[in-house]
Amino acid sequence: MHRTRVRVVEGLLDANDTIARANRADFQEAGVTVVNLMSAPGAGKTALLERVVRELGDVRVGVLEGDVQGTLDAERLASAHVPVTQIETGSGFGGECHLDANMVRSALPSLPLEAIDLLVIENVGNLVCPAEFRVGEHARVMVSAVTEGEEKPLKYPLMFRACELVLINKIDLLPHLDFDLGRLLANLDTVHPGVERLLVSARTGEGVGAFRDWLADVAGRRPAAVG
Amino acid sequence: MHRTRVRVVEGLLDANDTIARANRADFQEAGVTVVNLMSAPGAGKTALLERVVRELGDVRVGVLEGDVQGTLDAERLASAHVPVTQIETGSGFGGECHLDANMVRSALPSLPLEAIDLLVIENVGNLVCPAEFRVGEHARVMVSAVTEGEEKPLKYPLMFRACELVLINKIDLLPHLDFDLGRLLANLDTVHPGVERLLVSARTGEGVGAFRDWLADVAGRRPAAVG
Repeated sequence: MHRTRVRVVEGLLDANDTIARANRADFQEAGVTVVNLMSAPGAGKTALLERVVRELGDVRVGVLEGDVQGTLDAERLASAHVPVTQIETGSGFGGECHLDANMVRSALPSLPLEAIDLLVIENVGNLVCPAEFRVGEHARVMVSAVTEGEEKPLKYPLMFRACELVLINKIDLLPHLDFDLGRLLANLDTVHPGVERLLVSARTGEGVGAFRDWLADVAGRRPAAVG
Repeated sequence: MHRTRVRVVEGLLDANDTIARANRADFQEAGVTVVNLMSAPGAGKTALLERVVRELGDVRVGVLEGDVQGTLDAERLASAHVPVTQIETGSGFGGECHLDANMVRSALPSLPLEAIDLLVIENVGNLVCPAEFRVGEHARVMVSAVTEGEEKPLKYPLMFRACELVLINKIDLLPHLDFDLGRLLANLDTVHPGVERLLVSARTGEGVGAFRDWLADVAGRRPAAVG
């Protein structure tokens, strides 16, 4: 019985990849670079976005916001004066724990692609399934908060492997935690050797400039060089 | 197509509930009370368990540990001298983001049910899917760390509704956060009015005694009064 279920899921992932390729082709034709932003709940994705979108200068950015329920994050980002489109995953049964390519596809007509250079897709907070579903993005960024502990790369290796950049957030709290940053970085290199990483604090703004530069660079190199 | 998928999932949930009932009957026959412990990754489930299992006195406790990959948490708990059984959900595709009743059923023969009064099932870190899959437990506890922000109950209402107890963890960090505890509690009461809640710190031990009392009470009242 277990084997049957896995087969169903693999079929579903194949279908997802097909739609993801169609999304990506549409993004490329529109000249929009797409970044898929992932993390556990509460790691600070929205707070980092609030900071960085204000600093992107002449890179015109839009946000596609995935949430199980509610428009809280979308409202926070709209107040930063960027176009925000919302996907609620809560329809269906108890809510989807990730975005998939078809959800993003259904949001395409609502996206102002002609008016933006960079689309950041804020995924549902989850360290497992978002890593399994491509949505048509050019690059993937994941946020790991130091409050989550040093061992997360070992426990959720697929997520830490699936991204081009790891943002290590909440570093302003380091003095107040029993947290070994060297051990986190060693664990990160165990599962994804040499992956680019930035130490950031959405609260103090530390490192947000480097994240901005990374995003601007990705948007500039578009579409061939990334992913 | 979306509708088709939802139907498949509902069928899967029905099957899950059937197996969960079988698990629960087996637990009851063995005289074991079962608590399903859930949270986002890094909220402190394992750290709280490490603390509380040492204080449970004559309540004999065992732990069933669900993880996508690795035995880190199981090793931490084994060092607290409680019997630990591990389920790795990483087989299949990229790893299951939750435990389901069938996974717990497959672990039943490995559980020392005759030697324990209380089984704590530490679920995979995720605020969505674990709330959708009963595993045969008598009660559900979820951990919400203050570092995750005040709005989590509004964003993941099913999880906050699905539990009998909410542990608000990492309160030792409150002086270092921009965090409004009153707002978290108000949000909690919005989605689950009056649900029992305890303020705890796995790091300092604050509130762990109250959690121990709650667990001992649940184990004592078993099996009729809970759930």
